[in-house]
Amino acid sequence: MITLLKNARILSMKDDKIIFGDIAVTDNCISYIGDHYEGQTPDRVIDCQQNLLMPGFKDAHAHTAMVFARSAADDLPLHDWLYETIFPMEAQFQSNDIYHLTKLGILEYLTSGITAAFDMYFVPPEIIRASEEMGFRTVILATSDKEPISLLRERYLGYNKENSLISYQLGIHAEYTTSPERIKAVADLAKELHAPTFTHVGETESEVQGCVKRYGKTPLSYLVSQGFFANGGGAFHCNYFTKEEIELCKKLGIYVVTNPGSNVKLASGIAPLVEYQKAGVKLAIGTDGAASNNSLDMFKEMYLASVLQKVSRKDASAMDGFDVLKMATVGSAHVMGLKDADVLEVGKLADIIMIDLQNPAMQPIHNIPKNIVYAGSKDIVKMTMINGKVLYYNHEFFVNEPIASIYENAQRITDRLGKKKC
Amino acid sequence: MITLLKNARILSMKDDKIIFGDIAVTDNCISYIGDHYEGQTPDRVIDCQQNLLMPGFKDAHAHTAMVFARSAADDLPLHDWLYETIFPMEAQFQSNDIYHLTKLGILEYLTSGITAAFDMYFVPPEIIRASEEMGFRTVILATSDKEPISLLRERYLGYNKENSLISYQLGIHAEYTTSPERIKAVADLAKELHAPTFTHVGETESEVQGCVKRYGKTPLSYLVSQGFFANGGGAFHCNYFTKEEIELCKKLGIYVVTNPGSNVKLASGIAPLVEYQKAGVKLAIGTDGAASNNSLDMFKEMYLASVLQKVSRKDASAMDGFDVLKMATVGSAHVMGLKDADVLEVGKLADIIMIDLQNPAMQPIHNIPKNIVYAGSKDIVKMTMINGKVLYYNHEFFVNEPIASIYENAQRITDRLGKKKC
Repeated sequence: MITLLKNARILSMKDDKIIFGDIAVTDNCISYIGDHYEGQTPDRVIDCQQNLLMPGFKDAHAHTAMVFARSAADDLPLHDWLYETIFPMEAQFQSNDIYHLTKLGILEYLTSGITAAFDMYFVPPEIIRASEEMGFRTVILATSDKEPISLLRERYLGYNKENSLISYQLGIHAEYTTSPERIKAVADLAKELHAPTFTHVGETESEVQGCVKRYGKTPLSYLVSQGFFANGGGAFHCNYFTKEEIELCKKLGIYVVTNPGSNVKLASGIAPLVEYQKAGVKLAIGTDGAASNNSLDMFKEMYLASVLQKVSRKDASAMDGFDVLKMATVGSAHVMGLKDADVLEVGKLADIIMIDLQNPAMQPIHNIPKNIVYAGSKDIVKMTMINGKVLYYNHEFFVNEPIASIYENAQRITDRLGKKKC
Repeated sequence: MITLLKNARILSMKDDKIIFGDIAVTDNCISYIGDHYEGQTPDRVIDCQQNLLMPGFKDAHAHTAMVFARSAADDLPLHDWLYETIFPMEAQFQSNDIYHLTKLGILEYLTSGITAAFDMYFVPPEIIRASEEMGFRTVILATSDKEPISLLRERYLGYNKENSLISYQLGIHAEYTTSPERIKAVADLAKELHAPTFTHVGETESEVQGCVKRYGKTPLSYLVSQGFFANGGGAFHCNYFTKEEIELCKKLGIYVVTNPGSNVKLASGIAPLVEYQKAGVKLAIGTDGAASNNSLDMFKEMYLASVLQKVSRKDASAMDGFDVLKMATVGSAHVMGLKDADVLEVGKLADIIMIDLQNPAMQPIHNIPKNIVYAGSKDIVKMTMINGKVLYYNHEFFVNEPIASIYENAQRITDRLGKKKC
């Protein structure tokens, strides 16, 4: 199966250059990029009308199924939000709830040009089923400490097949919710498998204070002292790192995955991304879950990743727009282990989006990459292709289920969970 | 001409209640709101499929034609941005440039559900021609000090006809760009006409320091001492007000019009909206121009208006989402003098938008008004109706000119302006 995307502007994200030309996709990979395709007759031709093709965004930190709590508890202090709404709702989950809710989250990813998510949530088999049925790329991050280490090992070895839509990484939810024994056990397993590890860390000031009280160390330092992150990995949120912890990130190859939307809505803080960047720490971006965000929108996250640096440092030149675009594509792909989905290049996975340059927010044309960051919104996503398949085009979904049925299931589940609310 | 919008959810913005029913529009006004319309046969029927009708957003501070500088100078310090890019480009304007560029800005307003803009820019007749041809509602704020006071008087009396698409208000660009004589002359004219006045004020720290140096007073206090704001009006940006100035706003009925997108991108600061609200100051929202923003997107502004308060005050409950929605509709309409376009009610102007609740970001349904603020984007705008006419529907424009021609004109002008850049 060959799909030809012709007559496009192409931003490979290997650099900030834009070329004019064609991309051919054979099955799930890019088979041609250049001025003019003259290969085998394609099965499908899409005239891009000089709109922009670029790599899809990778959402490097998400809790996809948490769409059930979208706008269920806005404008509440963090403690009330978590303990009086989110936890009581989650406690009511039944079988298949996460499967259905994940599908709704995936629909939203498609509208935002997100072609893969690093999904930290419960019941991996349900997430996998939803992803595969929808044709979406998911990196599972299973952090439930109810799952035995042997199951993690089995899944790690079983799910990480090349070119599959699904892959699997090891982690814990957070230092403050995980026993020292479990932290050590996951760290040991990662060592055995030469695997990176991932967790929430440095999200709030009170988390840091709690860890210092418990262990005499700030959270990242404590985790590292337990062997966690020995093969690198990624830290989510990272609003409060000490200078020593920034050095640890650099030394161990730990990615900082920033989640600015969630952090400002919950008033957790602003990650000092410019400091991380100066220290040579690698950066990526995630949306976090819709419970706290409320949207799964990489345009919002990119915009915030830049402007929050500018305003908090009183420096309009802080955090260059193109650097942010790189974080949301290449950086996020790398932290998720998706090295074959980072840039547009022959042989890479065909996870490609088309940006509508005929949208008024993209006119007139000056600096397209930066303008995507500063004026982009879901409205400029014209196509989302994952693994060589067009799943979203001209505001229409091409998934294996009517979207009305996905909405109905999500609403039914949400109403049931809501009824048990404290 | 009767248009029936049937089978809708309706959020009038008189309160946060949502009812199910129909709205009928006769010519340019709302003629029916209720459970079920049974009046005269409508000329056009739009089935809203239980999507949400609400008042359009009013952009209470804009420089519409500045789309020419969108992404022309991102990530520059404010001084370089203004003096090395914006001013040199503006110096090259030719006749009809503002007319064409305004049309591009209006297209973008339509995609964001913005039904009126408070447009502070040069050459009012060109702005008026663009607005009327597009069917867009514009409140002109002419602040060029090259225009004689007699012309301002003539235009104020001439343009402010009831139910017209065009109205006109008095102002100055800013204290730091205007002579004391001109400030006094505009204040005197406003007194004569019993008119409110408007200006940029308290945008940056250096502006405040400069005014103190010049006049021994902070800018708002100085302006008030010169008779400006004697009949109320509106102040744009307002990041740096003293306690006394907050009291002055309350006392004189001066609206604070916040522009958070522009202020964070240019690193100007965060307006202390919660303090203003506590003091009983009336609030509205504007996008500022695309030169500094880069988009004309009320969803971005509403989101920032809330979350910047939360994160800067370390309080997730700060700045309630519904209050923000009210600022962007009712508050902005009132500061712009559009008292007939504030809420949905029989007799009001038919400036109505339809929000697509079938967009994944709006599912499942919990709190629709707040979720518009926290998860909304241009992507959820299904219809924009102004003065009874549908100008944007299902991502298509219904204006009196092909959008390709609007884009071509804007690009041609922009390329010419750019060539003269220092």
